[in-house]
Amino acid sequence: MTIHELTTPAALVDTTRMTRNIQTMQQRMNYLGVAFRPHVKTTKCIAIAQAQIAAGAKGITVSTLKEAEQFFAAGINDILYAVGMVAPKLNQAAALIQRGCALKIIADSVESASAIMAYSEAHKLTFEVWIEIDTDGHRSGVKPASEELITIGHILNRHKRTLGGVMTHAGSSYDLNTPAALQILAEQERSLCVLAASRLRATGLPCPNVSIGSTPTALSAQQLEDVTEVRAGVYVFYDLVMSNVGVCSVNDIALSVLTTVIGHQVDKGWAIVDAGWMAMSRDRGTQKQSNDYGYGQVCDASGRVIEGYQLIAANQEHGILSQVKPDNDQVITARFPVGTQLRILPNHACATGAQFPSYHPINDQQVISPAWDRFYGW
Amino acid sequence: MTIHELTTPAALVDTTRMTRNIQTMQQRMNYLGVAFRPHVKTTKCIAIAQAQIAAGAKGITVSTLKEAEQFFAAGINDILYAVGMVAPKLNQAAALIQRGCALKIIADSVESASAIMAYSEAHKLTFEVWIEIDTDGHRSGVKPASEELITIGHILNRHKRTLGGVMTHAGSSYDLNTPAALQILAEQERSLCVLAASRLRATGLPCPNVSIGSTPTALSAQQLEDVTEVRAGVYVFYDLVMSNVGVCSVNDIALSVLTTVIGHQVDKGWAIVDAGWMAMSRDRGTQKQSNDYGYGQVCDASGRVIEGYQLIAANQEHGILSQVKPDNDQVITARFPVGTQLRILPNHACATGAQFPSYHPINDQQVISPAWDRFYGW
Repeated sequence: MTIHELTTPAALVDTTRMTRNIQTMQQRMNYLGVAFRPHVKTTKCIAIAQAQIAAGAKGITVSTLKEAEQFFAAGINDILYAVGMVAPKLNQAAALIQRGCALKIIADSVESASAIMAYSEAHKLTFEVWIEIDTDGHRSGVKPASEELITIGHILNRHKRTLGGVMTHAGSSYDLNTPAALQILAEQERSLCVLAASRLRATGLPCPNVSIGSTPTALSAQQLEDVTEVRAGVYVFYDLVMSNVGVCSVNDIALSVLTTVIGHQVDKGWAIVDAGWMAMSRDRGTQKQSNDYGYGQVCDASGRVIEGYQLIAANQEHGILSQVKPDNDQVITARFPVGTQLRILPNHACATGAQFPSYHPINDQQVISPAWDRFYGW
Repeated sequence: MTIHELTTPAALVDTTRMTRNIQTMQQRMNYLGVAFRPHVKTTKCIAIAQAQIAAGAKGITVSTLKEAEQFFAAGINDILYAVGMVAPKLNQAAALIQRGCALKIIADSVESASAIMAYSEAHKLTFEVWIEIDTDGHRSGVKPASEELITIGHILNRHKRTLGGVMTHAGSSYDLNTPAALQILAEQERSLCVLAASRLRATGLPCPNVSIGSTPTALSAQQLEDVTEVRAGVYVFYDLVMSNVGVCSVNDIALSVLTTVIGHQVDKGWAIVDAGWMAMSRDRGTQKQSNDYGYGQVCDASGRVIEGYQLIAANQEHGILSQVKPDNDQVITARFPVGTQLRILPNHACATGAQFPSYHPINDQQVISPAWDRFYGW
């Protein structure tokens, strides 16, 4: 089957690009001497996670316990749940551990650590807990130089084998766009997470794992001394945001949305396509970046970029495609007649992928069967 | 079960508010003397569509053929697919009609109308087609005064029973926020769609149906002479965008996301919650409105608005909750301790609902069983 036989909108995964993205990242991690733990929240797809593991990943990172359950059921055992644990979710985490999952959970507060230990003691179950470190002020985590870090460490160390390490995510790397700035942030992420580990160890606490990462810092780090593993998610597909950050080219983007032209507004230079925000997502991550792609970059059905044409607006099932700087290239009805198939590259692959129940893997314009299911929800 | 036993994030539907929203709209349509055809793209939920029909709706509007298939399988027969038809989707539409579905499709171009007629003739199958009219320059449709309208009408009228009417959607109503402006646009939507119908009839073409609507115009129209039916979708839940438009109050919003506080950044006044953009969606529809709610308005677990607190930012599974104008109300850790359950009202109910596989209907804080499934995809 070719892509021309697919119902649109459809999520396409260019398997050549995806495989190259997976291999390039794994080779970089091997060269830097660290283990790699891809974040599978980007894809929520067992076939893709298995490809990452086959390439050398040592385990996975997840953003929900549902992901942990689904990937564990598919045979993946070494799982880091990288969102702060709270008491109401401990039953669900405990059930995974009791079934043999090597699940690691995280905490960044005395309250969270205390809740984990109280549950652990009441249920005679050991959790492996990594302390989340704030290395860039982006979101969660305790400061690496704080007293709270040591306090949390001591709470978790009431039981041997509970305190498993430290982890951080320099999410502010998405706001950068020069190699120099990215290298500085990557070194900040590394050194501050290593500092946290050193402070724990200096007080006699164990800290076997030092886990860092984001796609931009993973690709920018010059050395990873004293780091044990790196995490990254969106690199598997890349997207327009990552292209603007400067860590991939537009031609590395493996995820696109296949769409069909359904109408026009000739006087406005618009083609209306059947990929609205329900297909592309509402993510406007390139809005504040150097190159704003609207709701996505237009490509022809074979995946070649059509310079200057974007989805400039989106309703639920309608996308508005237009030339960004009109140059009377051609009347829009002649350029993109009703029925024309196009591909749209997404701002943010994690958000766009989440709109689809499955991906269609493709090799050039051939659709590989079966489709790859993805799941959603919590 | 109470909401405190739910895994978060979870989508809650306040059934008291939803029932009131459904009844109020239906009563208004009855008073205005028109049939009502709710747009079920907002909910994609059979239980809710059945409640709308039980209240008096004559049929439904859908945004995808998958919706048509799902609702037809659930026993709803009178369905308008309100996205421009193109040739590759005619097989799917034909299969529904052959199974007995009273499906109506739409066209707004000579190309689309010709493709429908070519298929119809080749397969000896009659489609009922309504012509989409552009009454506000918002998106799709032919101009009501255009020659193209008449041309399309004649193409479709090659077979009796094909040309079923005209329809329009004044989507630009979302950009307004005064009753006067909304009333003017509602009358523009009505009068221009009626003009299109009159022009078709004046050339001897049939036009039995005149279908208009959007939630804001449906609630603002003063009279609907010569209109046969109205469509509206988001009114069933309402949201913060509609509150800013001025057609509902915040206390009418029936959809909220239940979330749990998982951490803090005390120096920044942040509470971190487990509702990120994967739960809220990336929709920032209030960004350009009079009151920007960030990623949503914070309420306590019982649904009471906590003035001044919003989700100011969102990552995939992390929301950042903060006071918008800090007044040292209370230290954030004391105001919202780890483990606190909150509800977040959404910017755009259609986008937020789409992030969840099911809704939990609630009555006060009691969860009604079973949950209401919703579907997605194409």
